[in-house]
Parts: sequence; structure tokens; C-alpha cells
Amino acid sequence: MEKKDRIKGEFLRLKKQSGTHSPSIKTLLEEIPELDIKIDACFLSNPYATDLFLNYLEKDFPTYSDLRDCLEFYPPQNSDIAKIIGNTIDVSMENIFVGNGAIEIISAVLSNYCGKKIMLPIPTFSSYYEFIKEDQEIVFHELSELNNYELDVENLKEDLLNKKADSLILINPNNPNGDYLNREKVIDLLEFCKNLDCVILDESFVHFAYESDDLDLMNYYDLINTYNNLVIIKSMSKDFGIAGVRAGYGIMSKERVENLTKSSYLWNISGLASYFFDLYSQKKFREEYDVVRKKYIMNTLMFRSELSGIKGIKIYPSKANFFLIKVENDLDGNFGLNMLINHGVYVRNCSDKVGLEGSGYYRVASRTFEENINIIKAIKIELS
Amino acid sequence: MEKKDRIKGEFLRLKKQSGTHSPSIKTLLEEIPELDIKIDACFLSNPYATDLFLNYLEKDFPTYSDLRDCLEFYPPQNSDIAKIIGNTIDVSMENIFVGNGAIEIISAVLSNYCGKKIMLPIPTFSSYYEFIKEDQEIVFHELSELNNYELDVENLKEDLLNKKADSLILINPNNPNGDYLNREKVIDLLEFCKNLDCVILDESFVHFAYESDDLDLMNYYDLINTYNNLVIIKSMSKDFGIAGVRAGYGIMSKERVENLTKSSYLWNISGLASYFFDLYSQKKFREEYDVVRKKYIMNTLMFRSELSGIKGIKIYPSKANFFLIKVENDLDGNFGLNMLINHGVYVRNCSDKVGLEGSGYYRVASRTFEENINIIKAIKIELS
Repeated sequence: MEKKDRIKGEFLRLKKQSGTHSPSIKTLLEEIPELDIKIDACFLSNPYATDLFLNYLEKDFPTYSDLRDCLEFYPPQNSDIAKIIGNTIDVSMENIFVGNGAIEIISAVLSNYCGKKIMLPIPTFSSYYEFIKEDQEIVFHELSELNNYELDVENLKEDLLNKKADSLILINPNNPNGDYLNREKVIDLLEFCKNLDCVILDESFVHFAYESDDLDLMNYYDLINTYNNLVIIKSMSKDFGIAGVRAGYGIMSKERVENLTKSSYLWNISGLASYFFDLYSQKKFREEYDVVRKKYIMNTLMFRSELSGIKGIKIYPSKANFFLIKVENDLDGNFGLNMLINHGVYVRNCSDKVGLEGSGYYRVASRTFEENINIIKAIKIELS
Repeated sequence: MEKKDRIKGEFLRLKKQSGTHSPSIKTLLEEIPELDIKIDACFLSNPYATDLFLNYLEKDFPTYSDLRDCLEFYPPQNSDIAKIIGNTIDVSMENIFVGNGAIEIISAVLSNYCGKKIMLPIPTFSSYYEFIKEDQEIVFHELSELNNYELDVENLKEDLLNKKADSLILINPNNPNGDYLNREKVIDLLEFCKNLDCVILDESFVHFAYESDDLDLMNYYDLINTYNNLVIIKSMSKDFGIAGVRAGYGIMSKERVENLTKSSYLWNISGLASYFFDLYSQKKFREEYDVVRKKYIMNTLMFRSELSGIKGIKIYPSKANFFLIKVENDLDGNFGLNMLINHGVYVRNCSDKVGLEGSGYYRVASRTFEENINIIKAIKIELS
């Protein structure tokens, strides 16, 4: 019991240091060596896609000497990479801004193109309310527990008018609950927002969403031509499982891309990220990726089904690769710590998320088939 | 002759596309496949340091599977890396801002901490006059051909007063000529600039400079404690030969670091860059690095000695790993193109550098021992 208390204290200290993000596995392992973490269920990426990337890396660069050019030389300039991405996703390169991870694009767009009053549905990813400038203000659109934290387009429209917001951020599917707005509703909303300064549509998790049984990939890129204020943000971290490579892109008006690239962001991605985009442009890679994407979605659907069979938790609707759950009788917030200490399963305690009042909220990521089985087992034991 | 003209035309088209930077080797090889480039003497890094990094990479991660964590997971946050660097260079982590390459830091510091009128000695690295905001102005301090483009501290002081500059950028050693201001002169200048908004001291090439015969590393970090407006910028691209990894850091006041990290730059370096900084913190690695640093400097000194024996060129004083040369009778600017087409040696034509009037200026990088011999041979043939 003493050991547990010590670990608990250490964890809470590290959490405090990490601000509104969770301490990374690396930090936990370094600072609390007695922790035996087996599964990182905070981590929101497709592990099968990481396997695929590693396979290609090994095939294309059998030894590190073969990788030399990637490491030694300057990567191509931003616009050269934009050209490759543009050809791949059938969007003009002039509409593409390449980022060192999506977070760089979020930050650049927030401070350059959003107005003074930015509406943000909450709960959501904290960087969106942290990375604004001093003269900007985030106005929250609170999603309601009563409505399972699902976004209601009409409510949002009304709130935009009432609060006189000039910009809107939409994460679709949303993080941490995975609520998904279908294409029809997104268009309805964009039409309503035509006169705003900026609408950010963050598609970091859209590869795990679908609107039909064939699980085909959703795509909103074409909307950029109709809505000049729209900025679509794509992270490669989650869908392709390569957060450490730091790669993403934004799709926005030609003028906005031009303005960002002229003032900075010349060599903002690494040689390895440049290699990733080369892969991304290969039809064969994308086809193989789509197989592991669907495999992972199927996996996640099974995970959901197992989760919903567990007594004592509520699961919110999600079309992302994670589930927001509410654990009953978790007033002391111990469920997450017990999962970590007793079972080595790291789940995300959401009690620090603005808009998630009360304790007992956790975000559980879907991982590999085998890991998901073990997460389910651990939750069952913990709640029994 | 027809082939040459075609290649020439293609090269000039690509150069135009690349703005004030040279087209990369990768772009040249892709767009002009008939070019047979053997040596990239535009490229300013220590190739022996790249070897060292690759050796460590192979030892620490024998296979790509071992590298998985680096690629799959989010890298540690900016402040975690700052802590590692701080311990290594004996500077408080609170004074360190980690950057995705030095260029990210340059851009952030220019737009956040430099005032409206920034003095920049020219000729120099073009990003310094490209990455300013619309309400900022760069005022040039022209270095004189008559003085071999060497910086005269008293002249600079006078110019700062006359032009009422509020910030100063100092690249030491300077690029493209390699002129080096010793520690005493730098302190003299910082003292004079005490009341400016910001003084940027870019040390990208300082690992190749020295003030005594033992070639020991110069270090200006301590000056940060005396001069609160000083920002020291360190790239890892040149000294450690890893431009593709994108890693650098800035040393500046605690307030400035805090302000930059709070508004953005959370996960701005990759897993591989994080690994590099882990290496950087190891005494053994740094000792081995210092051996290849000195080996490379010796190499560069021999290169200089050979260059100065060639008739028809003038070499300017340099303590960097490259030499600015002036080729006599090169009014048509063909020397560089001929080096590329006839010998496969890519040298940097400096005719697009503000402050280098007239044609015939080229920057030639020192590469490996063997490559330097071949560069010398090619120049001799070309000028004979």
C-alpha cells in the first residue's frame, strides 16, 4: 500500500508538470522505474500502420548508411513537399501548407487567420484553447452530457450568433469523445459560417470514421473550393502511427498558404517526414495502408462491443479510435491510477479537460487486437 | 555544346524556383537526370560528424524495430529536451528554447523580440532578411570589399547609431565569407548594444572557429547572464552534419523562452532529434565528436592552403568550413555552371546575395579529404 501511495504521488507530480497533456510513457518510465507499463491506452494511433511504415523503411533503406541522405541533407522545401501531397490527394499544391506535425499548423492558423473571438466546442483537445494570442479569446460551446456530448448543429449555429464569434474550430471526430459529424452536417455548418474569418476543420481522426458499411475513407478536401475561409488540418500521427516523425498538412486558400510560407516555414519538416510523404504518394503504399486502416477499425468496433458489456461504465458514441467512458463511483479518481499500477494499462484521465465536469471520465484508446483483450480484462477485474 | 546549354537553361529555371536558396541536390538530380553530381560543395556540414551519428544510431538501434519508439510515439515536450541540453552545456534549462532546426528559432525571435529596425551586416544568409514581419525593416550594414568583407566593430557601432537600429543580427562566423569576430570584440559590441531590443548571435558555424592553436571550441553561452537582450542561436545541422534531422536551440532570457513555449512549440522536434539530444548529453559522444571536429578543421585548413595556390581566384579570410572566392574574368557567371557540368562539383554562386555586387563570387564548402582534393583538381582544370 505504501508503494502504491508513493507511485500515486509521483504520478500526480508528473501530471502537474505536463500541464494539460498527460506525462509521456517515456517520462513515466524514467521517473517512476518501478511502474510496469504494458499498454499505452492513452495513445491514439493505429499500431498496424506503424508496422507498415517500419516495413517500408526497412525495404527502402536496408541499413542506416542507406538512410544517410535523409539525415545529412536539408529536406526539400515546404512547397516541394506540398507538390507531392497535392498530386496524391488531388488538391492543388498551392492550397497545401506542410507542417511539422498538425500542431504547428494549428498554431499558425490560430494566430494568423482566426479573429478575436473563436468558438470551440468543448470538451476537446487542449491545444486549441492554449495556443491563442493575447488579443484573442476562446468562447466555449459546451456540449451537453444530457446529449452524450454530441454536437447539435442548430445549437451551435445559435451559439455562434449569440456570442458573436468570428471563427470556429471543429474537430471531427472530436477528441476525447469521438463524436462524428457527417458530411451533410459539416456542409450545412460551413454554409452557415460562410462569413466568418476562419473555420478550422481538424480531421486528425477522420481516417477512423466512416459513413457506410464498406468503411471507406471520408474526404472533405473538395470543400476548400467552395468555402474560402475553411482550413482543413490533417495530422499523420494518428492514422499512420508516426507521431515521432512529426508530419501533417493543412489545406487552405492559396493566399493563406502563400502568406505562411513567405514569412517562415521553409524547411519545417525532417528528412524522414519527407520520406513519409514520398511513400504517401505511392499507390501501392496507400492500398496497403487502407487494409490496415480497415483492420484497425474492425478491431476498434470489437473493442467497443466488449467495453459495452462491462457493468459500471458508460460509453459515449464514437467514430474515432478511442472511447470516452464514465466510470461509476469514481469520485476519488482512482480508477485510472489503479489501472496503471495494478495492470500496467495507461488510460487518459479526462478530469483536466474543460467541459468534462465531475470525476470518472476516462479516454481509452483502441490498440492492437491482443492489447484490447488485455485492456478489457483489466477493466473487468478493476471494476469487479 | 547543345547539351550544356540545355542543362544550363534547366539549372537557371530551378534556381529561379528556389528563390534565394540554391536548388537542392535532390531537386537537381530529379529534374536534370543527365547531371552527374559527384560533390556537393554547396553543403556546409561536417561529413565526419554524420558518420559518427550514423555509427551511434546503428549501435543504439541495431534494427528499425528498435527504432520504433522514436517513430511511433510523440517526442518529449520542448522543456524536457531543454533540460537535457541545459545539463549538457551548463546553462539553465529555463534559458533554452529548442527548435526544429535553427531556422524556426530565427523566425520566432525575429518576429517576437526584434524591434522595427533590425541591422544586418551583409552579405549574409538570406533568411535573415526574408523572415521579418510586414511592420519590420531590415537596415543593411554593408561590409566592404576593400576590407575583405571583414566586420569592423567601430564602423558597425557608428552605423547602428546613424540608422537608429533597435536590433542587431550577428552571424559569427558569417556566411558566406566566414569572417570571425573574436570573443573580445563580441563582448565589446554587446556592451555597446546593451539598450537594443534584441541582439541575435547566430553561432551556426562557431564549431569550426577557434582562437588558439589547440582548436578548442569557442563558447559564448555565459554572456546570456550579462546581456539580457542577447539571443544565441545554435544549429546542429552544420557541426553535427544532420540537417535532415532538424535540430537546434536558442539561448535567451527566461522570460523570452517562457513566452515562446507557452504560446506554441510544444512538440516541435522529432523523435530522432530527441535521440540526437540524448547523444549530445553523453560525454563519450561529445569527446568522439570533438576528435572529428578537429580533424575536419585540419582538413579545411589544408583545403584553404591548396585553394590559395590556384591562380585566377581570390580567397577571403574565413574561420568557417567554407571559403568565399572571387573568380577573375567570370563576367558571364559560367564558372559555377562549368564546375557542375564538366566536373560534377556543385559550388554556390553568390550572385544572388545582397551585398555581393558584381559576378564571380562563389562559396566553396570544405568536404571530406578526398572530396577536397577533387574540388581543387576541378577548379585548377576549369581555370587553366
